[in-house]
Amino acid sequence: MTQKTPQDHPLIAAIDLGSNSFHMVLARVEQGEIRLLERLGEKVQLAAGLDAEGMLSEDAMQRGLDCLRRFAQLINGLPRGAVRVVGTNALREARNRASFMRPAQQLLGHRVEVISGREEARLIYLGVAHTLADDAGRRLVVDIGGGSTEFIVGERFESLLRESLGMGCVSFAQQFFPGGAISSAAYARAYTAARLELMNIDQAINRLDWQEAVGASGTIRTLGQCLQAAGKGQGEVNRDGIQWLKRKLLKSSHIDQLDLDGLKDERRPILPSGLAIMEASFDALGIESMQHSEGALREGVLYDLLGRQRHEDVRERTLAALIERYHVDREQAERVESKALRLLGKVSDAWGPFEDKQVDMLRWAARVHEVGLDIAHSQYHKHGAYLIEHADLPGFSRQEQQVLALLVWGHRRNLPNRTRLADFSDDSQWILRLCMLLRLAILYHHIRGYQSMPTLKARAGENSLVLEFPAGWLDDNPLTQADFQQEAAYWDKVGYTLTVR
Amino acid sequence: MTQKTPQDHPLIAAIDLGSNSFHMVLARVEQGEIRLLERLGEKVQLAAGLDAEGMLSEDAMQRGLDCLRRFAQLINGLPRGAVRVVGTNALREARNRASFMRPAQQLLGHRVEVISGREEARLIYLGVAHTLADDAGRRLVVDIGGGSTEFIVGERFESLLRESLGMGCVSFAQQFFPGGAISSAAYARAYTAARLELMNIDQAINRLDWQEAVGASGTIRTLGQCLQAAGKGQGEVNRDGIQWLKRKLLKSSHIDQLDLDGLKDERRPILPSGLAIMEASFDALGIESMQHSEGALREGVLYDLLGRQRHEDVRERTLAALIERYHVDREQAERVESKALRLLGKVSDAWGPFEDKQVDMLRWAARVHEVGLDIAHSQYHKHGAYLIEHADLPGFSRQEQQVLALLVWGHRRNLPNRTRLADFSDDSQWILRLCMLLRLAILYHHIRGYQSMPTLKARAGENSLVLEFPAGWLDDNPLTQADFQQEAAYWDKVGYTLTVR
Repeated sequence: MTQKTPQDHPLIAAIDLGSNSFHMVLARVEQGEIRLLERLGEKVQLAAGLDAEGMLSEDAMQRGLDCLRRFAQLINGLPRGAVRVVGTNALREARNRASFMRPAQQLLGHRVEVISGREEARLIYLGVAHTLADDAGRRLVVDIGGGSTEFIVGERFESLLRESLGMGCVSFAQQFFPGGAISSAAYARAYTAARLELMNIDQAINRLDWQEAVGASGTIRTLGQCLQAAGKGQGEVNRDGIQWLKRKLLKSSHIDQLDLDGLKDERRPILPSGLAIMEASFDALGIESMQHSEGALREGVLYDLLGRQRHEDVRERTLAALIERYHVDREQAERVESKALRLLGKVSDAWGPFEDKQVDMLRWAARVHEVGLDIAHSQYHKHGAYLIEHADLPGFSRQEQQVLALLVWGHRRNLPNRTRLADFSDDSQWILRLCMLLRLAILYHHIRGYQSMPTLKARAGENSLVLEFPAGWLDDNPLTQADFQQEAAYWDKVGYTLTVR
Repeated sequence: MTQKTPQDHPLIAAIDLGSNSFHMVLARVEQGEIRLLERLGEKVQLAAGLDAEGMLSEDAMQRGLDCLRRFAQLINGLPRGAVRVVGTNALREARNRASFMRPAQQLLGHRVEVISGREEARLIYLGVAHTLADDAGRRLVVDIGGGSTEFIVGERFESLLRESLGMGCVSFAQQFFPGGAISSAAYARAYTAARLELMNIDQAINRLDWQEAVGASGTIRTLGQCLQAAGKGQGEVNRDGIQWLKRKLLKSSHIDQLDLDGLKDERRPILPSGLAIMEASFDALGIESMQHSEGALREGVLYDLLGRQRHEDVRERTLAALIERYHVDREQAERVESKALRLLGKVSDAWGPFEDKQVDMLRWAARVHEVGLDIAHSQYHKHGAYLIEHADLPGFSRQEQQVLALLVWGHRRNLPNRTRLADFSDDSQWILRLCMLLRLAILYHHIRGYQSMPTLKARAGENSLVLEFPAGWLDDNPLTQADFQQEAAYWDKVGYTLTVR
């Protein structure tokens, strides 16, 4: 149940299923440091295959799977925990994402996680921070992606503020420059739309008083390259450069006519939208000049993975902060956690084996199950689940937040039934069983620390569990007996038999 | 829009629609002090008319309305703000409560509010605290009601902890002593059920280290009276007394045979269940002895009402705490609040007049509209609405929390449509209009404090509003123009025309 050390897995890999491109990085871990071996990128344009109803087209999915088939060769045989695959805005928005994620997971042999915009922002910052000099200045990092744009303010390796806006160079190209037509009115509309989005975050960013702006995506690199090719600077983007590019842009009425040295054809369609988002960002945030960094989401995922292997899992810190903030009774949480793990050990022959990831979920659910009490006592399991599902929890993927929220939801009253488990398909069995173990641990410690409790025997069958108290103990403790009887009735409703004697 | 002073309304009244009895108190306010003029109580047994599906029977509603017809005479002609009518557990649970509340409101000429269990607990404490010596000790107050039991720990006039459990002497009588049959097995089941409920709160209560226990309901008075009639004490209940009553009780096999001096016939059916809840509370909380206080929910409502008239509205303090806790940007909230009130003044000829209560809602919504940002930026209006609807907000009725939550929900993106407003029936029009005013105030201050904004002219029609900026201003400020254009599209969806020029 403990994570293996990096020495055992010298190779790690990260795959980023972006809205515009898919990227993979493969690296070797040497003395805890990362040495990049391979960088792959393919323009898949997933976001271009999203229709107005949020359905991803067959074609777009096929392009994505073809790309992953090529990536898969390189990570063939790497163990779980050595590869992380994350999806961003296009997959966040695609209502039929399961139709893509299932075959993708089969191809890769690793789970695909959809991450929130803020989690994406956190990882981008981590990637960028590792490529920059380790000075003490405060930085603003901007990543204009295909479907979303991330803004992060951070110092060294820590992000202080993470924001994600639902505007990207692919989606804005479709919306404001359909078919590649360019006009100054269209550019003004794209610019204003970007400014309206930025009004949600501009003050919060500028309150943090950053000193240096860094850009982290293909859009920024492209703009810098065009400027450099015209003899303007060394790859950075500044206000004069933006105005020059804009004048060049508005001389054309179609992207095919764009006359810019250094502009790759594949970047052509998203140059007008990318420039509008860039200009709006400069104006809204008071940026004077922006350097480009090669670090990005995939590098961030890689460094995050390395941190997890070294037991510096940012998720642990996130939950510690959550517990602090919502005033969870820590002692009780620890009692429940350790009891839940002991029960898990007793049933893992019949109900397991459980993966490390699943054990983590049980531990974490035990720690946060009372988090909703801080909102109100009545229905607090539901409030806790709401918080866990919707809060910004650095390090967690959306699916992880959903599983954790379900465990918290199901820690008292009704167990999750088939309808509620439907979204979790293959995972529903272990989730339900972990939920049962969590509940038993909570019942066992229901009389918090007041009462010394006896050792239990536990024996699990396919759909049953027998808990044995020492002879006569339950008769002397009718409250605990009634508590477990009530519990057995809840298990019965989801087709499990709990026998307590 | 300001509350009238108490000098203008020398009479105030409170009505408590309890699960077992309805009560009314009428008082005169003299130099800011309350002089009770009248106390009325009738045993209506609303909870006994609730079926397993949560439907309140016609008979029970009729009993309630007959009682209110008698109460109504005494408060005839009292102005709004001088009478408060609150419903507790039976009305919390009745799914068809609207069928009772509507005629009740017509009879009384005042709004009926359903309050949460915790709000009930807070008000009970306030009522009890005013009947006790004003010493500095910490008290535990227990109120065993018909459908719920409240537990409060407080000092002087402040409650520190408020809990409400869904067990009451009427509901437990039906569940464990149906038809009035008594047995020691039935008593043990009722006792254990009460202990299981108490396990949710016992530690939190005892952590507060209270020194004195006070009981505040008919059940506790009845038990004390039976003991006093038997020469045991002066009306207080202690452990020996409980054991003596239990022995007497278990000698009978039916409540009709109960041989206890001082027991009124109407109290007979709920004595076994009340005693079981009492014994469980003594054991779970380590109570040795409990005094009875005449103060109760209705007195608490009266003192709360007096506080509101004196501008000591506890709701203001509650929101201030919420704002503090969830790190709301106070300056922005104040800007939005004052702009919203100014806009309200400009449209109140066409859209008003607005009652003081409604104006309060607008002010409060302006203050808390950003509360959800603390959970996550994405969809924060929904998170804020969730918090406001479910949090324990002392002073607020359920309906008030729901209205406030809806205003917060609707402060950006879509306005509440007909489906969402359906639950608010007669109130839906002013709620929608206040929501629109709130949004305009937010848009007006969208560029927080950065930009000096011009004075607006506003002219409202039945389903329209014209906002006029100074000539040329919008052309110079295309961002604001685009912002209001977007807003007009949202209004259009709910049948209102917003013209900005």
